[in-house]
Amino acid sequence: MKNQEHILIIGAGLCGSLLALRMAQRGYKVTLMEKRPDLREEIVDSGRSINLAFSDRGMKGLRLAGLEDKVLPLCIPMNGRMIHSADGQLFMSAYSGRNHEYINSISREDLNIMLLNECDKMPDITMHFNQKCTGVELETAKATFEDYKTQKETHYQADILMGADGVGSALRKSMLDHRKFLFSYGQDFLTHGYKELSFPASADGGFLVEKNALHIWPRGKDMMIALPNLDGSFTVTLFLSWDEGKDSFESLNSDAAILDYFEREFPDALALMPNLIQEFKENPTSPLGTIKCSPWHAYGKVLLLGDAAHGIVPFYGQGMNSAFEDIDVLDKALNKHEGDWKAVFKAYQDERKEDTDAIADLAVDNFHEMKAHTARPIFQEKRKLEIAFENEFPQEYFSKYSLVTFREDLRYSEAMRRGRVQDKAILNLIYDGKFSESMTLQEKLNLVKQETRKMLHDDEVVEGLEEE
Amino acid sequence: MKNQEHILIIGAGLCGSLLALRMAQRGYKVTLMEKRPDLREEIVDSGRSINLAFSDRGMKGLRLAGLEDKVLPLCIPMNGRMIHSADGQLFMSAYSGRNHEYINSISREDLNIMLLNECDKMPDITMHFNQKCTGVELETAKATFEDYKTQKETHYQADILMGADGVGSALRKSMLDHRKFLFSYGQDFLTHGYKELSFPASADGGFLVEKNALHIWPRGKDMMIALPNLDGSFTVTLFLSWDEGKDSFESLNSDAAILDYFEREFPDALALMPNLIQEFKENPTSPLGTIKCSPWHAYGKVLLLGDAAHGIVPFYGQGMNSAFEDIDVLDKALNKHEGDWKAVFKAYQDERKEDTDAIADLAVDNFHEMKAHTARPIFQEKRKLEIAFENEFPQEYFSKYSLVTFREDLRYSEAMRRGRVQDKAILNLIYDGKFSESMTLQEKLNLVKQETRKMLHDDEVVEGLEEE
Repeated sequence: MKNQEHILIIGAGLCGSLLALRMAQRGYKVTLMEKRPDLREEIVDSGRSINLAFSDRGMKGLRLAGLEDKVLPLCIPMNGRMIHSADGQLFMSAYSGRNHEYINSISREDLNIMLLNECDKMPDITMHFNQKCTGVELETAKATFEDYKTQKETHYQADILMGADGVGSALRKSMLDHRKFLFSYGQDFLTHGYKELSFPASADGGFLVEKNALHIWPRGKDMMIALPNLDGSFTVTLFLSWDEGKDSFESLNSDAAILDYFEREFPDALALMPNLIQEFKENPTSPLGTIKCSPWHAYGKVLLLGDAAHGIVPFYGQGMNSAFEDIDVLDKALNKHEGDWKAVFKAYQDERKEDTDAIADLAVDNFHEMKAHTARPIFQEKRKLEIAFENEFPQEYFSKYSLVTFREDLRYSEAMRRGRVQDKAILNLIYDGKFSESMTLQEKLNLVKQETRKMLHDDEVVEGLEEE
Repeated sequence: MKNQEHILIIGAGLCGSLLALRMAQRGYKVTLMEKRPDLREEIVDSGRSINLAFSDRGMKGLRLAGLEDKVLPLCIPMNGRMIHSADGQLFMSAYSGRNHEYINSISREDLNIMLLNECDKMPDITMHFNQKCTGVELETAKATFEDYKTQKETHYQADILMGADGVGSALRKSMLDHRKFLFSYGQDFLTHGYKELSFPASADGGFLVEKNALHIWPRGKDMMIALPNLDGSFTVTLFLSWDEGKDSFESLNSDAAILDYFEREFPDALALMPNLIQEFKENPTSPLGTIKCSPWHAYGKVLLLGDAAHGIVPFYGQGMNSAFEDIDVLDKALNKHEGDWKAVFKAYQDERKEDTDAIADLAVDNFHEMKAHTARPIFQEKRKLEIAFENEFPQEYFSKYSLVTFREDLRYSEAMRRGRVQDKAILNLIYDGKFSESMTLQEKLNLVKQETRKMLHDDEVVEGLEEE
């Protein structure tokens, strides 16, 4: 009989439950510890966003675990951004010029339940809920948990400890507090916070606005978005400054101030929000932050994955997707180095860190793009041109958004490098009036390619010289 | 009589003592608290580098306090980098093509003593040594100190609390631990650590190698440098990987290993290091890290300055210089908003944060430049060209190094923006063979300017659009 190594995973959220499944599929004995109650038995107010954008990189992770068919029924395709302009106009901006490329709205809870049910089917996975991690010994992979309900303390001795315990990771905190190695760590907050609100379903259970879109109300400094849920409702999220400028969470401190703000900025949405005032006052306002750290592992015994290793802001819809992709990258490192955990962890971080740093930075960029650029003519012109390129030359052109979201074969860091330069090239060509009316689309594409190539060359010369 | 506000400054190092002086000159009542003993009375092993590079931005801060004449006698001009190549060749690379531009080696201790003596002359400054800050109440500017010698605890109630208490800042720590506002914070370590060593003076008190240079032994992955001291000795610093690669602080774990490494890599230096083995084993190995945080202030009551707000790696020689420049920027914010501390602190950070972020990133870049690029032909060719430009066209051309180091009229962020693009332009022109033998220096300069302008334009279009 095989000598099974025992992996203890902290966190049975999206990342932890898929990780448990995959590790059990690989033959490990897995214990999965979750701080919250079992959300299949109790309503859990997670304090996190209700629905998420699910796309190709996330699917890669689920496919690895054989779950592609299980997730599809949970998805609502969103083909593009439905932009609600300040003057009440609607403008649909597709995510891609290739019709088969879109993102999906998915319920965090539904997806997590599906994953936990799959874990239940694996005899080598044991799950415990209401277990708060209160201490970790990094050198020996020992961990202590306290039961929220009984206050009983339990000690576990595992072979390997994996922290998939989210942005507030207990494992990461013990690595930061540990004084025996240098731990690089950053927490970086935006000036804005967010609050979840909602549109109800229509009386007959239908959708009050376009179902297959991610709705955006870009207002330059602030922004509101809405994602569809399977029951016909929408989860609405307001992104607003904490305390700066004319309107802020601080200034919206009365029913009148809230109403006035929505009447001024989002009148069409206000008409769909019968419970606005109550929701605004009762729902929490939460921070938006980026977490980066290194190393993700220690002593060949512990490893951080998902948000615990790299918390990102939600504006590229890549938080869950990057966590699921982590599992795919870890799986490949295991294929190469199984049996030597130090080598596995090192290979995993060497491959992955650059990419999660990239998606973290891209997500912050996209905050500015969504709240401001989507409303402005030059960026709309760029977007129209890119959609036309993708539609007419589907094998030749990929926008930055497509590179990041739909090209799961490409690393985030490479998608960022190419995408940023391409954006710079197109914006300059438009700004400098280099596209003439008489040019064909093919000629315009050639111009973009030529300018992008020149800029990439200039960057590559410097990067190449620096790396030698 | 004037109602004097009371400023309590934590830290009487270089930044804190100049800050105390300037605040007293402006009419405030100042209490200056220092954790260490008075270095005028006791030998203080600070654990920090013995000598520093002092240049124009630092002078700006000292000039503000009227100390230009006091600092000059402490300075040893360094006109360039003396590069000690692996094959034993010496190559002097000037810091600037303008002869009046150079940096200075200065003793941290001498400079600090000068500043403390100046503080002594101010009746409105009270100094206390051996006082460790053990707690801060941010909202009320209260602080508690413990005397190292008597263990006596003292409470202070100030109007304003300023933390100039270095990379390990107690004030910054209390801002990070404080849970009532979002505090962005990053600590980022290099893979290398450093260790201080020395060359003694010659028997007659002279310098064993060129006095007026910063000596560098660039070895690609590692590097050693040496700065002159007034007594004829040199302070030598080895920058080496902690535990990666063939040679590392981990691998140099015996007399034989240390000797072998120095014989292979730094034979000319080894000949000048009679106490190498002892120094190597007795002197600490220290980490190299960057600290960034925000906000630097809270409640209109507390403010971080210098390393406490922005710890940087030493490779641009700008740690002390940026701290002294901080005081100049704060002084200007006081000129505008004196009487409203919240406004002063906000104006100060709004102006300054972007620049200290820039010098932090530039300093990391320069690590790679110093340890690797200085030894390579294409970078040497670039440097030679730039020195020729600066020499022949002193009003027209400034290298990135000159922009950062000598153009104290220019913000760090602007120096970084211009300098990086210019570097990219020149490296591409050399790499692509665009400089021909037959061109005059003026023609070469024109080419660099043209290419730089084009690249800056491309960047500015994107940045301009993003900021609108």
